[in-house]
Amino acid sequence: MAKYPDSFQLILQNVSRHISLNAEEIERFFSVLHVKKYKNKQLILSEGEICYNTWFVTKGCLRGYTTDQNGFEHVLSFAPVDWWIGDIYSLISQKPGTLNIETLEASEAILLHREHQELLYADVPKFERFFRIIIEKSLVHNQQRLIENLSLSAEDRYEKFCLRYPQLVNYLPQKQIASYIGVTPEFFSKMKSRFYKK
Amino acid sequence: MAKYPDSFQLILQNVSRHISLNAEEIERFFSVLHVKKYKNKQLILSEGEICYNTWFVTKGCLRGYTTDQNGFEHVLSFAPVDWWIGDIYSLISQKPGTLNIETLEASEAILLHREHQELLYADVPKFERFFRIIIEKSLVHNQQRLIENLSLSAEDRYEKFCLRYPQLVNYLPQKQIASYIGVTPEFFSKMKSRFYKK
Repeated sequence: MAKYPDSFQLILQNVSRHISLNAEEIERFFSVLHVKKYKNKQLILSEGEICYNTWFVTKGCLRGYTTDQNGFEHVLSFAPVDWWIGDIYSLISQKPGTLNIETLEASEAILLHREHQELLYADVPKFERFFRIIIEKSLVHNQQRLIENLSLSAEDRYEKFCLRYPQLVNYLPQKQIASYIGVTPEFFSKMKSRFYKK
Repeated sequence: MAKYPDSFQLILQNVSRHISLNAEEIERFFSVLHVKKYKNKQLILSEGEICYNTWFVTKGCLRGYTTDQNGFEHVLSFAPVDWWIGDIYSLISQKPGTLNIETLEASEAILLHREHQELLYADVPKFERFFRIIIEKSLVHNQQRLIENLSLSAEDRYEKFCLRYPQLVNYLPQKQIASYIGVTPEFFSKMKSRFYKK
């Protein structure tokens, strides 16, 4: 097998949770991936652009967010190490997307270009299964968040955030968490002090 | 080929939008499906139950909703004819679900049991592709709705609802649409009269 970056072992572990690949299939998979390094606060996808890639985070943390008419940011998801992120709407429609993707610190990701992803489906159909499963998980996550936003108080949404992203609770700036749970940073700060007094 | 209900042609058309099946594969697909008729307002899945099926609607209309601690209903999705519905969280985890699924009139659906779905993946791997694609579309729909709930006014959310479900705008009771866009029926009624005066 050709020499590949060490970080490819991480993506292989991630994939191997759902499908088993033989040496030839691993080689085919690795041959379509490439690594990119990003600086802190680097915008790697802007709304209005067409999204061609899916990112698998190997260092640092990315976040996906939109900006509303009043300039407020709304965080759709965070992607720490071992998570996938992309603008799925733009990726499948190949129309301009609605998502911004930005690093929250110096980060590194493995990119899978959509054309390579289609080739991979054709050559190694098990990847249809892999992506079906991770998209199902993403759908579950999104549905739960939608229900939480419709039915839970901000405090309960914060509790759900802590369960979902335990590794991010003490890592993220407060304003990012506030934006995820849908409150102002000021309200979040007051709410959090009440939360920890409980 | 064995004799199957006429409604199976509708599910075949739906599937054929994304994958091509030969006669043998169609036979295999049809052999795992079964039809159920439901009365008006029939609860076909209750929160707390484990979900074993995915429903494909062939007559009438279903809705998926949750109930919060205060007894308020929140509609996650509607499924008119030619749409799929299920509690994806419970279906993949086989844990008690959070969704209620109820008919909005006398309805008919084709059921695909999860064990049959797994057999189908093994026998006709193209179905991995089919379900990957429809779950991707469902994820896009959910992400857009999440963004809308975080960033749009109730009027703009109503406009998005009309674009998404044009066939339901004049069909659904007002309180169902109000529950989908996340406002009270009273607020929705006032808002709608302003909306149509524009």
